[in-house]
Amino acid sequence: MFEFSEASRHYQAALSDFMDRHIYPNEEAYVRQLAESPSRFAALPLMDELKAKARAEGLWNLFVPPSLAQFCDHDGLSNLDYAPLAELMGRVLWSPEVFNCNAPDTGNMEVFMKYGSPEQQERWLKPLLAGEIRSSYAMTEPQVASSDATNIELRIARDGDDYVLNGRKWFITGAMYERCQIFIVMGKSDPDNPSRHKQQSQILVPKGTPGITVLRPLTTLGYDDAPIGHAELVFENVRVPKENLLLGEGRGFEIAQGRLGPGRIHHCMRLIGAAQRSLELACQRVTRRSTFGRELSQHQSVREDIAKSFAEIEMARLLVLKTCKRMDEVGPKGAMDLIAASKISVPIMVQTIIDRCMQMHGAGGLTEDYCMAEAFNYARWCRQADGPDQVHQMALGKQIIKAYAE
Amino acid sequence: MFEFSEASRHYQAALSDFMDRHIYPNEEAYVRQLAESPSRFAALPLMDELKAKARAEGLWNLFVPPSLAQFCDHDGLSNLDYAPLAELMGRVLWSPEVFNCNAPDTGNMEVFMKYGSPEQQERWLKPLLAGEIRSSYAMTEPQVASSDATNIELRIARDGDDYVLNGRKWFITGAMYERCQIFIVMGKSDPDNPSRHKQQSQILVPKGTPGITVLRPLTTLGYDDAPIGHAELVFENVRVPKENLLLGEGRGFEIAQGRLGPGRIHHCMRLIGAAQRSLELACQRVTRRSTFGRELSQHQSVREDIAKSFAEIEMARLLVLKTCKRMDEVGPKGAMDLIAASKISVPIMVQTIIDRCMQMHGAGGLTEDYCMAEAFNYARWCRQADGPDQVHQMALGKQIIKAYAE
Amino acid sequence: MFEFSEASRHYQAALSDFMDRHIYPNEEAYVRQLAESPSRFAALPLMDELKAKARAEGLWNLFVPPSLAQFCDHDGLSNLDYAPLAELMGRVLWSPEVFNCNAPDTGNMEVFMKYGSPEQQERWLKPLLAGEIRSSYAMTEPQVASSDATNIELRIARDGDDYVLNGRKWFITGAMYERCQIFIVMGKSDPDNPSRHKQQSQILVPKGTPGITVLRPLTTLGYDDAPIGHAELVFENVRVPKENLLLGEGRGFEIAQGRLGPGRIHHCMRLIGAAQRSLELACQRVTRRSTFGRELSQHQSVREDIAKSFAEIEMARLLVLKTCKRMDEVGPKGAMDLIAASKISVPIMVQTIIDRCMQMHGAGGLTEDYCMAEAFNYARWCRQADGPDQVHQMALGKQIIKAYAE
Amino acid sequence: MFEFSEASRHYQAALSDFMDRHIYPNEEAYVRQLAESPSRFAALPLMDELKAKARAEGLWNLFVPPSLAQFCDHDGLSNLDYAPLAELMGRVLWSPEVFNCNAPDTGNMEVFMKYGSPEQQERWLKPLLAGEIRSSYAMTEPQVASSDATNIELRIARDGDDYVLNGRKWFITGAMYERCQIFIVMGKSDPDNPSRHKQQSQILVPKGTPGITVLRPLTTLGYDDAPIGHAELVFENVRVPKENLLLGEGRGFEIAQGRLGPGRIHHCMRLIGAAQRSLELACQRVTRRSTFGRELSQHQSVREDIAKSFAEIEMARLLVLKTCKRMDEVGPKGAMDLIAASKISVPIMVQTIIDRCMQMHGAGGLTEDYCMAEAFNYARWCRQADGPDQVHQMALGKQIIKAYAE
Repeated sequence: MFEFSEASRHYQAALSDFMDRHIYPNEEAYVRQLAESPSRFAALPLMDELKAKARAEGLWNLFVPPSLAQFCDHDGLSNLDYAPLAELMGRVLWSPEVFNCNAPDTGNMEVFMKYGSPEQQERWLKPLLAGEIRSSYAMTEPQVASSDATNIELRIARDGDDYVLNGRKWFITGAMYERCQIFIVMGKSDPDNPSRHKQQSQILVPKGTPGITVLRPLTTLGYDDAPIGHAELVFENVRVPKENLLLGEGRGFEIAQGRLGPGRIHHCMRLIGAAQRSLELACQRVTRRSTFGRELSQHQSVREDIAKSFAEIEMARLLVLKTCKRMDEVGPKGAMDLIAASKISVPIMVQTIIDRCMQMHGAGGLTEDYCMAEAFNYARWCRQADGPDQVHQMALGKQIIKAYAE
Repeated sequence: MFEFSEASRHYQAALSDFMDRHIYPNEEAYVRQLAESPSRFAALPLMDELKAKARAEGLWNLFVPPSLAQFCDHDGLSNLDYAPLAELMGRVLWSPEVFNCNAPDTGNMEVFMKYGSPEQQERWLKPLLAGEIRSSYAMTEPQVASSDATNIELRIARDGDDYVLNGRKWFITGAMYERCQIFIVMGKSDPDNPSRHKQQSQILVPKGTPGITVLRPLTTLGYDDAPIGHAELVFENVRVPKENLLLGEGRGFEIAQGRLGPGRIHHCMRLIGAAQRSLELACQRVTRRSTFGRELSQHQSVREDIAKSFAEIEMARLLVLKTCKRMDEVGPKGAMDLIAASKISVPIMVQTIIDRCMQMHGAGGLTEDYCMAEAFNYARWCRQADGPDQVHQMALGKQIIKAYAE
Repeated sequence: MFEFSEASRHYQAALSDFMDRHIYPNEEAYVRQLAESPSRFAALPLMDELKAKARAEGLWNLFVPPSLAQFCDHDGLSNLDYAPLAELMGRVLWSPEVFNCNAPDTGNMEVFMKYGSPEQQERWLKPLLAGEIRSSYAMTEPQVASSDATNIELRIARDGDDYVLNGRKWFITGAMYERCQIFIVMGKSDPDNPSRHKQQSQILVPKGTPGITVLRPLTTLGYDDAPIGHAELVFENVRVPKENLLLGEGRGFEIAQGRLGPGRIHHCMRLIGAAQRSLELACQRVTRRSTFGRELSQHQSVREDIAKSFAEIEMARLLVLKTCKRMDEVGPKGAMDLIAASKISVPIMVQTIIDRCMQMHGAGGLTEDYCMAEAFNYARWCRQADGPDQVHQMALGKQIIKAYAE
Repeated sequence: MFEFSEASRHYQAALSDFMDRHIYPNEEAYVRQLAESPSRFAALPLMDELKAKARAEGLWNLFVPPSLAQFCDHDGLSNLDYAPLAELMGRVLWSPEVFNCNAPDTGNMEVFMKYGSPEQQERWLKPLLAGEIRSSYAMTEPQVASSDATNIELRIARDGDDYVLNGRKWFITGAMYERCQIFIVMGKSDPDNPSRHKQQSQILVPKGTPGITVLRPLTTLGYDDAPIGHAELVFENVRVPKENLLLGEGRGFEIAQGRLGPGRIHHCMRLIGAAQRSLELACQRVTRRSTFGRELSQHQSVREDIAKSFAEIEMARLLVLKTCKRMDEVGPKGAMDLIAASKISVPIMVQTIIDRCMQMHGAGGLTEDYCMAEAFNYARWCRQADGPDQVHQMALGKQIIKAYAE
């Protein structure tokens, strides 16, 4: 079995306990508060209360790895150690924010930690780590297949001491949120560079910069993921000082590569939590309903679905844990095959599991009375997030063929 | 091949033409009008305009079968003849209402035609056929597995010249809609009757009757299906005159049986239209996008998905047409096996096809920019509507085993 | 529903009756006779007895279409009319030969009827139609992907008044059979022709011609399909007179195109019969076994599998019938999309259905005690026969995309 | 990651090396020797040569666990340590016998080690451990659903100092093999015992005992698994001395429980090896074939299939390793849930993976030219062996529901 550190085991117990005391009992209240909120993308008072509690109990910024521990109040948790924590948070979709561990802020904070200048860290990372502001990562564009990052077209042009941005982005998670203050924007600074991986740069753009239009929130399967949300953005002659550039011109692709591996795995971890909880709900449901004279739990097909789901969750979890271990040992690049294997396997598996669990709940299983429908949307969405599965299958297939074809 | 009557072929051409002229060009306007509507469940001006046009062109109440042709302005269309029309309407989810052919009103109108007294027909059927009011069919209950109709608990108690209703219903499609004026309510009038299929009655309850609380709209996968919607309703001492009873005490199960067969098949027809349109959108999409140097349409996996979807749509459509033909020949009861076969096959197939087509659209495929995500929800929902697939598999499996086991 | 001619309905009844009287009662005897045969590929006495009976009852050469009726003793049966007959024969894998309707002889006889000279017809077609000799169609080659016919390498070189053949073939169905006397061989007569579809010719090669080595029988999933079998053949300087050429030099591709469409559909028809029979066996089985206190037929998962299989068989059958109808109306070329749709859908569906039915039979379901295991192999094999499904998906996908992409 | 002991790592390297030197180079010779063998179930000289070599290199009886190390020449290998070794052996289906690690002898030897008397061990275990004789485990019966062991009907009746056996068994692996000398037979010694799990006993029956008829070899999907094979046996008044009873009257169920857990897991381990090898073969194949102008390896659907197979093998392997670890820690009983999860997941997954890999090989993939078709049969067969998956899903589903339903 995979061995977790003592710290991880401590946090697992503490987090599980926190969820029992503060998260599950507040699920209905959260939904209600969001429904009654004057704006879909306003911060909710309940969230702030819970954040304060989580921080007070030391359940804060748990995503930070040991190599970056100087930025947080604990000693850092490896990917393996963090996995069961992210799984626990995945049981309630909105809960990661309570622990300052929600996407895309976790990935963005890592970018700041690794590539930010001291001034950039002071200005943006500090309030992000404190949970005071939120951030977005602006990569995907509506008019091109952004899974191939070399397709990206947003222009970042040097003009004196500034850079000027023109282009369009969408699915910019967090950009709708009223707390969001900073965008990390990927674009082309050198579109004619013969090396297709040196044409891109990443640059910091404060949300309120003139020329930015937050066009609209996007939905997936009917969900707007409020208050965090996904936005479509237009950049028209958006001007920022040259100091806002991250790492250096032409290094945008490099930053993107480093950022996306762990992000994909965090999604997988959370999805496993969502599947596990759906399975538990289904087990409870089938002992409380009867049709045609038998408790649902006694129907052979129900037992088969439960058994398959249990086995699939075990397999998905083990694959993710192995991927984490490998990432901890050799870094995301050396774990590329396992990251891809997780990315193409876990979301589709979780989608199928939750589909079954909803079905066992009857019509109600599809409603907002349960967490499953929204988790189903999350799983479905992850088959597109960070690139459609097909792109990762292409890369992984190529790598495996090469490895065995001699 | 299945032969359609000349009337059906005429309507197919006229309807297809109408959709080209009035429906597709208004899809964006419809979404916008709904989004800007002061209430989610208000009638939309655009709908009224389109209804007037459709009626003027004779594309009205096409669901009415020959046996009930006295109630409509055409000679009636058999199930087979209606199938390609419903498929066309299924290409735009909200369009059936334009032609006064939307669920649950079609099924309810049939109930009125077959079982209503002349007074009931005058009072409710006439405005329904005119598209002036809308109706609901209140069967499903939250606290019991309603797919087994004998589980239903809402009480319909005789009290002098009245009946008094007490109970709870949910997933009552249309009940949220401001145009909805009448509920057909299924409940137990004789819970102690030794025959479990004679305990139920159906009764007419005007929406505004005191004691009814429209508790809330329900969502499925995040969709509220506004403005028609699905409601949760509470009945507390709701009193209606005894004349509101349909057909007679203890005949509720009989009415339900007659109503549901065609309803399921209408869903299947519309779903096939939704799948067909999704396939067409995917074909267009893959010729407009390139990744890694190749147009999507040239990827072998894209072609495989398109080919499979084409074949599956053909098979689903043929199964539905055969079912229609059989229903026309021997009635829904004699076509029970084929109705069940369609019910358990078409929605899941369509869900899978639309899932593929969305995936070929990238992240955008999941948004409201395309009709696919909402159609996906419709397909998913139909695996529960009119009873979960499992219940129909149980009944069909039993019937087939009996037929072949000697 | 699809309407069958009176002739077809007559033959359906007669064939079904013949199977009841002579085929099913001889299934065990056939297996035994084959097992005890001195050679795996010898003709079996039982087959000869049954052929005589079938011919006497007029159940002979039913595959011959109306356009070629001059070659047979009936008026010809359209593809649609033949479909239910082929389905019936598919219920017992070895039975098509009884009616002189087995692959590859049916396709080969069609080639002779359409493209053979009077001399060729007299010499080969006549005894084939009489069931006295058997034939093979030698197309697939081991060293190239033969699904792309332009890859074929066997050389057909003109030398004076002869053609000389050099090359290797495999999966040559029937070539092992002792009754087989004639091969139709596809090869390249003009490898440098700029038109890649004019490089091929087809030529008649008597089995005993010097230079031919019947290398070995091939198995698929452990089955040798004896006595018909599949052979690997080597051609070394095999010399035949120029009169043996079919149709003309460079017209091999054209002949192949015409031959393969109906062949694929015949496989589908027979597979549907195999699936239908497996389903019937499963229905019988589950009423005769109990586990854990319940008859298998009462397990919900058993009913679900039976219900799904019933629905899938209906859909597969309808797709094949529609394909036949279209072929009858516009020829195989105009029905290319539906032929491909059948080819990629029916074998995999039938494989899945039989897999389920075997599973319901316990361990015995995989043995030779039932017809299912061998039928499973037939379905699996058909996913490769006449080209792997993937090639047909590629072509069909391309065609559909083009049709809808504007 | 799961940590293997130094001993396991040593054996992994040695075994892998042995396979490179002696197994892979002899695959063709083995097939040929079997084909030319005068009897399907005779011992092959090649096997004896290889066994001598393996034993000489210390690759012998590696399945023996530490708790039973007194019976072998090494210190025992835990389930976890043995897993990668069994996986390696699974790459060539007949190779486990080379290392005296083949089913059913491994399980039978464990029965002798744990439950045999010193006399029984001397007489049967010793030559089994030396690879001199083979054994069978006779449990399954043709006329009852044997997955529910309480259904078993073979009668073991006490008569003076003897037991007399009457009944019928089938799928008795190894019983055809000429080296097989001893059967462990499960039957009912006390059919009227009110405890349904105390009615059974297990008893030793030498193969040559009068009254035993070896009726016939059984095939699965056309394979007879020669020379080990699966037999149908009849017991008519078969008389053995009372000393042949194992453990004690009424303890047959207890022995069966202990035997089957590891057996199922060994099958899974070997299947993973078979899948892994099929994947490797597919990777090699797709770089050596071209269709329609592209190498197969460049087709997106090929890459997707390779990528999915890689991910699934990883997941299956991890699940099995976790199961092993748990078995090592708490015994098979405490690992029941994971054993069942492996049993219901691994064979079906491997069947699917091998199906894909065969398909990438074209028609040849189904023949005896590759190891895949027979491995496919092994995977398919394992969905029935030790009880159909459905029975294990029933038990596992029940257990999981109970665990989470509160």
